[in-house]
Amino acid sequence: MTAMRSESSSSDPPGVPLLPPSEPMSSDEVLDAWPVLSTSDRAEAFRLLPRDGAGDFFLGLRAADQLDLLLGMPAAEQRTWMRLLAPDDAADLVQAAKHEDRDRLLALLDDPTRREVTALMAHAEDRAGGLMDPRYARLRADMTVDEAVRYLREQLRERRHTLLYAYVLDAEQRLLGVVPFWQLFIEPGSARIRDIMKTDVVSVSEEMHEEQVAQKFGQHHLKALPIVDAEGRMKGVVTVDDVVDVVREAATEDIQKIGGVEALDGPYLEISLPRMLKKRVGWLSALFVGEMLTATAMGYFEREIARAVVLALFVPLIISSGGNSGSQASTLVIRAMALGEVRIRDWWRVMRREILAGLGLGAVLSVIGFARIMVWATVFHAYGDHATAVAITVGLSLVGVVMWGSLSGSMLPFLLRRIGFDPASACAPFVATLVDVSGLIIYFSVAAVILRGRLL
Amino acid sequence: MTAMRSESSSSDPPGVPLLPPSEPMSSDEVLDAWPVLSTSDRAEAFRLLPRDGAGDFFLGLRAADQLDLLLGMPAAEQRTWMRLLAPDDAADLVQAAKHEDRDRLLALLDDPTRREVTALMAHAEDRAGGLMDPRYARLRADMTVDEAVRYLREQLRERRHTLLYAYVLDAEQRLLGVVPFWQLFIEPGSARIRDIMKTDVVSVSEEMHEEQVAQKFGQHHLKALPIVDAEGRMKGVVTVDDVVDVVREAATEDIQKIGGVEALDGPYLEISLPRMLKKRVGWLSALFVGEMLTATAMGYFEREIARAVVLALFVPLIISSGGNSGSQASTLVIRAMALGEVRIRDWWRVMRREILAGLGLGAVLSVIGFARIMVWATVFHAYGDHATAVAITVGLSLVGVVMWGSLSGSMLPFLLRRIGFDPASACAPFVATLVDVSGLIIYFSVAAVILRGRLL
Repeated sequence: MTAMRSESSSSDPPGVPLLPPSEPMSSDEVLDAWPVLSTSDRAEAFRLLPRDGAGDFFLGLRAADQLDLLLGMPAAEQRTWMRLLAPDDAADLVQAAKHEDRDRLLALLDDPTRREVTALMAHAEDRAGGLMDPRYARLRADMTVDEAVRYLREQLRERRHTLLYAYVLDAEQRLLGVVPFWQLFIEPGSARIRDIMKTDVVSVSEEMHEEQVAQKFGQHHLKALPIVDAEGRMKGVVTVDDVVDVVREAATEDIQKIGGVEALDGPYLEISLPRMLKKRVGWLSALFVGEMLTATAMGYFEREIARAVVLALFVPLIISSGGNSGSQASTLVIRAMALGEVRIRDWWRVMRREILAGLGLGAVLSVIGFARIMVWATVFHAYGDHATAVAITVGLSLVGVVMWGSLSGSMLPFLLRRIGFDPASACAPFVATLVDVSGLIIYFSVAAVILRGRLL
Repeated sequence: MTAMRSESSSSDPPGVPLLPPSEPMSSDEVLDAWPVLSTSDRAEAFRLLPRDGAGDFFLGLRAADQLDLLLGMPAAEQRTWMRLLAPDDAADLVQAAKHEDRDRLLALLDDPTRREVTALMAHAEDRAGGLMDPRYARLRADMTVDEAVRYLREQLRERRHTLLYAYVLDAEQRLLGVVPFWQLFIEPGSARIRDIMKTDVVSVSEEMHEEQVAQKFGQHHLKALPIVDAEGRMKGVVTVDDVVDVVREAATEDIQKIGGVEALDGPYLEISLPRMLKKRVGWLSALFVGEMLTATAMGYFEREIARAVVLALFVPLIISSGGNSGSQASTLVIRAMALGEVRIRDWWRVMRREILAGLGLGAVLSVIGFARIMVWATVFHAYGDHATAVAITVGLSLVGVVMWGSLSGSMLPFLLRRIGFDPASACAPFVATLVDVSGLIIYFSVAAVILRGRLL
């Protein structure tokens, strides 16, 4: 293992070791250094891991990282590592590979697994089917507990898998019930499975979106859920550890979209600069083109600004207050929608709430803003003869702008979802533009009324 | 069950049913309607659930909702439901209760469980100890597999718990190894536990932050992790289903903080309006006070604006571009930090990246902005005789402002973490204020150079 090279990145050419080999690192140390290691350093670090820990380490990596390691190995080793993967993880790895490499990777698997993996690859990645493990323990309802234990033992010897629940199927593979594995341990050996199984089984369909699957896990606190098709036939299981990644990735995507970036498809430091630019330039340009409307809006008030330059001084303050209150409201509503706490039909309750919240928040800012201008006018004789009128203009505008920001920030996610867009991805730009442009119109309209005959 | 009352909220007084009782709802229907049901409707819906599903339903609720249901039940029933909870969930429920109710709730438990729950309550909620289940299966290293199975069967009969792994302890309760439960099923009965156990055990400490625990699960793809103290003594286990909630809640908090809101401590629609205002008014006022510096900055350039009002027209466009690029950069860095992809020592790599990204993005916006002004000047004869000079001013400013936005947006999270703040919670306001104020200074400074002798 070469010493950690802090300047290396995944796009570096295979590097010459900078320092003589030192002590091998532990799994945890390698994991810790992983993001900053080059591809060749990773392969080297992995090769030097103690055999005992290397398996868990490999299984814990992201599919793309597993693929990189695998492609750097001699062919004989590739087979061993590929066969260590559960079918759903093998499918992820193959899907992370270039099209021309996929057949070769699939050929490393044994025949039954290859069939399972190929079947799994047909599922869309973001559906329950894409998280499915086709290996699960099955029982018949008329077995005794003793028979069930023997039968499960055979299944486990044939193909090892984590055993949480045993699923009771009829001859047509329809799911009749479920028995937690530990229960087989404590029930009398002569008891019938049909008498001890739980028949009120929570299940998901292959087509359910993975984020909804994650919500099901959150609601029921189970460690695995069976996947059944429309006819009630058992297809496989999803386990809760796969769902942790789903929840984390969904949150990351939402956070990035709220920040006005297309969802990155990898860790920040591992994405190449051109790719990073591509993910950011789209929304940034869209926002910019939208914001050009502010120049148009300001243009309409050019004469007012020329007569009362003091008005221009508060433009950034006014529009940023609208933008901030809008981003508070839209962030809260987008997240509540993602968590299933707010549905489209709740729009009216949210609207009522945000109008009141906006008025309250606007009133607070209004008082602060009014006081600030009056103090500066008194102490520094700023803002000319009509400082009080200017202070009233800014104060009143703030109530209107903040209320409008909260209202439009909270309602746009509903509108976007209603017309079929993802509320997270398109909201920030629309709210920003809408609130900035209408904020300017509110401000200059209030000014026209208050300052007419004075400054204007 | 009364019909769903869309206007009810948790703060409503116990309501009179608006409609005659109809068909009982299924668990899934009740879960779906839960957020919009009043406390009394919830109790009623829960009472009418089929006995079979009610247990799972209760276990799947948030601690605060379990508490509400429990407090509305007759005393005899309270005992049954309270004893259904695992010790860590019981501890959460008790901690959700008012101080005066806690002793009464604890008294519902049997003696050993009460001792466990009281011990768990001593742990900070956001540490591994707060997620800990003190009930786990234990073995001795010198047992045979047959003895281990008998021993586990006794442990399970005494206190049921989900069985994933059996932990091998010595006489001082030190953790020696781990055996997956299914393995006991397939090993020969005479094999010794010490020969089949895995000794390279991944474990966590009681004091580890729950988000780090979640990262451990993500790295190792395990379904449970043992918690050991500084002396290597086993204290309990954390299971992956508890971690799903941790990941989801941590992401929600980060999203809310990025949106400029203090983390809400409950679903959006269930928080009272005054509480919601309190969560929002702090940051909004802080942002507002910070943004007042823009009025000060604009004040310095009042003479320039008076001479060339056209400059004022592009102020919102310039500062919003800086703000947007800053929020892109800070969002990406904050999330990458939360996921452990970027550490403090990576600041230099991030900085280099963001300077380049900022220059690239700024160049794109600059071209768009320049073109927009030139087209308007040509087609509508807007922006007076010096339109080209204005276009150059705006174009050059955009490169500087966007680069500065990306740079400060990416570096502030590092600075905040370095001095001990949560990067998510304080970043948005600082970036917005910093970028807006410095954006104005960049813009008017560029204008002073380009337009001197023309407009200024």
